[in-house]
Amino acid sequence: MIRWYWLFIPFCCGAQGIDDSLFIRRIYDEALTRGQAYERLRTLCKEVGHRLSGSEGADRAVAWGLANLREMGYDTAWLQPVYVPKWERGTLEKLKVSAAGKSIELSITALGMSVPTNGILEAPIVAVRNFEELETMGSNAIEGRIVFFYEPMDPRFIDTFFAYSGCGKYRLRGASRAAEMGAAGVVVRSLTHATDHHPHTGVVIYNDSFPKIPAAAVSTHDADQLLGWLQKKIPVTGFMELNCSLKEEALSYNVVGEIYGRQPNTFITIGGHLDSWDKGEGAHDDGAGVVHSMEALRILKTLGYQPGFTLRTVLFMNEENGTRGGSAYADSMRWRSEKHYAAIESDRGGFAPRGFSMDVNPRQMKQIEALTPLLLPYQLHLFYKGWSGVDIGPLRRDNPDALLMGFVTDSQRYFDFHHADTDVFEAVNERELTLGAAAMAAIVYLLDKYPVGQ
Amino acid sequence: MIRWYWLFIPFCCGAQGIDDSLFIRRIYDEALTRGQAYERLRTLCKEVGHRLSGSEGADRAVAWGLANLREMGYDTAWLQPVYVPKWERGTLEKLKVSAAGKSIELSITALGMSVPTNGILEAPIVAVRNFEELETMGSNAIEGRIVFFYEPMDPRFIDTFFAYSGCGKYRLRGASRAAEMGAAGVVVRSLTHATDHHPHTGVVIYNDSFPKIPAAAVSTHDADQLLGWLQKKIPVTGFMELNCSLKEEALSYNVVGEIYGRQPNTFITIGGHLDSWDKGEGAHDDGAGVVHSMEALRILKTLGYQPGFTLRTVLFMNEENGTRGGSAYADSMRWRSEKHYAAIESDRGGFAPRGFSMDVNPRQMKQIEALTPLLLPYQLHLFYKGWSGVDIGPLRRDNPDALLMGFVTDSQRYFDFHHADTDVFEAVNERELTLGAAAMAAIVYLLDKYPVGQ
Repeated sequence: MIRWYWLFIPFCCGAQGIDDSLFIRRIYDEALTRGQAYERLRTLCKEVGHRLSGSEGADRAVAWGLANLREMGYDTAWLQPVYVPKWERGTLEKLKVSAAGKSIELSITALGMSVPTNGILEAPIVAVRNFEELETMGSNAIEGRIVFFYEPMDPRFIDTFFAYSGCGKYRLRGASRAAEMGAAGVVVRSLTHATDHHPHTGVVIYNDSFPKIPAAAVSTHDADQLLGWLQKKIPVTGFMELNCSLKEEALSYNVVGEIYGRQPNTFITIGGHLDSWDKGEGAHDDGAGVVHSMEALRILKTLGYQPGFTLRTVLFMNEENGTRGGSAYADSMRWRSEKHYAAIESDRGGFAPRGFSMDVNPRQMKQIEALTPLLLPYQLHLFYKGWSGVDIGPLRRDNPDALLMGFVTDSQRYFDFHHADTDVFEAVNERELTLGAAAMAAIVYLLDKYPVGQ
Repeated sequence: MIRWYWLFIPFCCGAQGIDDSLFIRRIYDEALTRGQAYERLRTLCKEVGHRLSGSEGADRAVAWGLANLREMGYDTAWLQPVYVPKWERGTLEKLKVSAAGKSIELSITALGMSVPTNGILEAPIVAVRNFEELETMGSNAIEGRIVFFYEPMDPRFIDTFFAYSGCGKYRLRGASRAAEMGAAGVVVRSLTHATDHHPHTGVVIYNDSFPKIPAAAVSTHDADQLLGWLQKKIPVTGFMELNCSLKEEALSYNVVGEIYGRQPNTFITIGGHLDSWDKGEGAHDDGAGVVHSMEALRILKTLGYQPGFTLRTVLFMNEENGTRGGSAYADSMRWRSEKHYAAIESDRGGFAPRGFSMDVNPRQMKQIEALTPLLLPYQLHLFYKGWSGVDIGPLRRDNPDALLMGFVTDSQRYFDFHHADTDVFEAVNERELTLGAAAMAAIVYLLDKYPVGQ
């Protein structure tokens, strides 16, 4: 299939050379000498703070996003309404455990969207490594218990996101799998490679076929201690108390900024998610992706680049517990018959750039590979077939040929901060963040100037 | 020239394949699941602490190194004597400045090897960007003044070590260049990209033809403030006080651990430097390189690898202010007619691995490039012609064909910590450090198994 916009291709792929090399250098110079991403992240973290969907923080973040995009010289910026779930953590998240005559409090946090305990849930705790072990143990061993999923993230993966994917199922679906067998509650080991005292939250997804039971994450340090007792066959009783609650859905917004291209109806979208968990300041997750995306198009605009496609920065709402923003954005594109040529998501923190994970076909990959030598001097070296992002994923439905990409950063430290109190502005390095914005600008420039076909 | 050891090459280059791929995977698995580098770095930082040449800390570090190498299963370990300069910071490092009727104290630290002020040095401060400006200003403007070299590191370099090289000359040689024109003292802007309150020390090298004048580094925050006044033509008087002193030379040691190879008299040396500045804990500089090197050979030994060459881990003394350890090591090799096939230095901190900078000839580079695809899965991607390291550099004299390499980490954060109070154990990420040790083990394995010719 030939799309009409191929008629506007200024050069064929492979023709890029010295001019492009110089322009990408200008992108990096602008970012590294006059960059705004770090200061913008500071205001998001320190003046807005954390911003869970439906919260006052999220409202402040929406206002912050719109005001910033307007100040930054985008051609236009607006809000796209979206209804979001509103879950509140409440004031109580406690797990006291009694074992061998001693009683201590573990460091836990409710999983997002968890039901409350409605008073104190007192139950024996049973350690379960994985779903296979859960099945093997059978309902008699599980019924009425608090199930403790203790499998750690596998340290052998070089890319820590693979380890996260491998282990995330216990946080996402452990509650319903355990409830199916009669469990009264669930505690999961925090999803991090670090051994420390910070519990890491994240969403739990209930299967409506089974009772909804309270679910929490325990810090890795305390998880190891708890496991030590249980593996020595010391009986442990838990006293768990969560008073979180799910409220009525709330009206919120995606924040969209646009730079007009020669083709008004075909888009390159870049984005991160504006919502965060109600822990820390959402600095790496995903304040970094938000300011990467805002800054990338600011750089291109500042340098006077005239895009072929229309460029959009989208600050998606509700990535963490519903993906309503991503779905609403894809829906609105359908209603308006707007098409996407490419979309790039940044949701791996403000760490040193490594490259891009690409949901593209083999022919597209080949064309993109012809462009990547221009990015090697900036230490971008990973260009592989893979997952793009939660928020831009829904665009695939109506854009079967679109290039969907995820910006890949160095992943080693990401899960030290992810969904925890430690995810604050001070955990972000200015240069690493800044180089991310430049990398996003550079790939947008190349994809816009040298359209990749199907 | 054909060396005798080519006779023992087990395979020719290019023959590596599935077995090597599996063995490198085992190296990484050992590091990531049973690694000792991080815990070893903790004891070096917390039990030994900082360890400037000639100090008690350095003595403790030598004992720590020898005890550790012996415990780790090295075939042998010993101390190699070396005399080192002994410089002490003293108890006073102050710079009060008076400007526009106000008086404030700036955050400074004496440069290593600086002479003291012998009381309070009171003098007008004059801002000088670089040596060209110094020359242009002439002796009348400089004589009797404290010269403030304010040039910041250039943020546009992607690899921050290039920015450091560009700016390091003011710290190294600024004092003598200014003294040549009659200056009474020197203050240099700290060598870091961060804007903060921590002054960064480092060595000053005096030219014996000119008077030795006191030299200090000022924090970047305070440097910017001072420059602001001077650029507004506000006269600033400095009151500088340093009571550092140079003592008699002291006996110290390189610490050497060895794993016997089939060829007893030809070596692969890997190493970092055991001494550090007397700031922070020398965690990244160069505790990381020390434990990288110790751990890399431990991994090979643990996995039962039988090396062809004799493998050595050398913990060099006195990299920071004299390079006596590196010179003594090269000298001892000469006396014993021992030859080096390869040497690899780790002195860029415990950050995420990127690759190797290689002082090799083009033919050697080509052979090494044939091996590097095995390292790409571990996100090692930089293999370029470049500088190896301060401590192994002296080996070149007697080993014209040796492969000399520097381990390259991600450089973005390095100068946030370099030579400052902030260089502590907590600034090192366990996985980033661990991957460095594995990368060092992997390159030693490949170079040992597939000897690279001339």
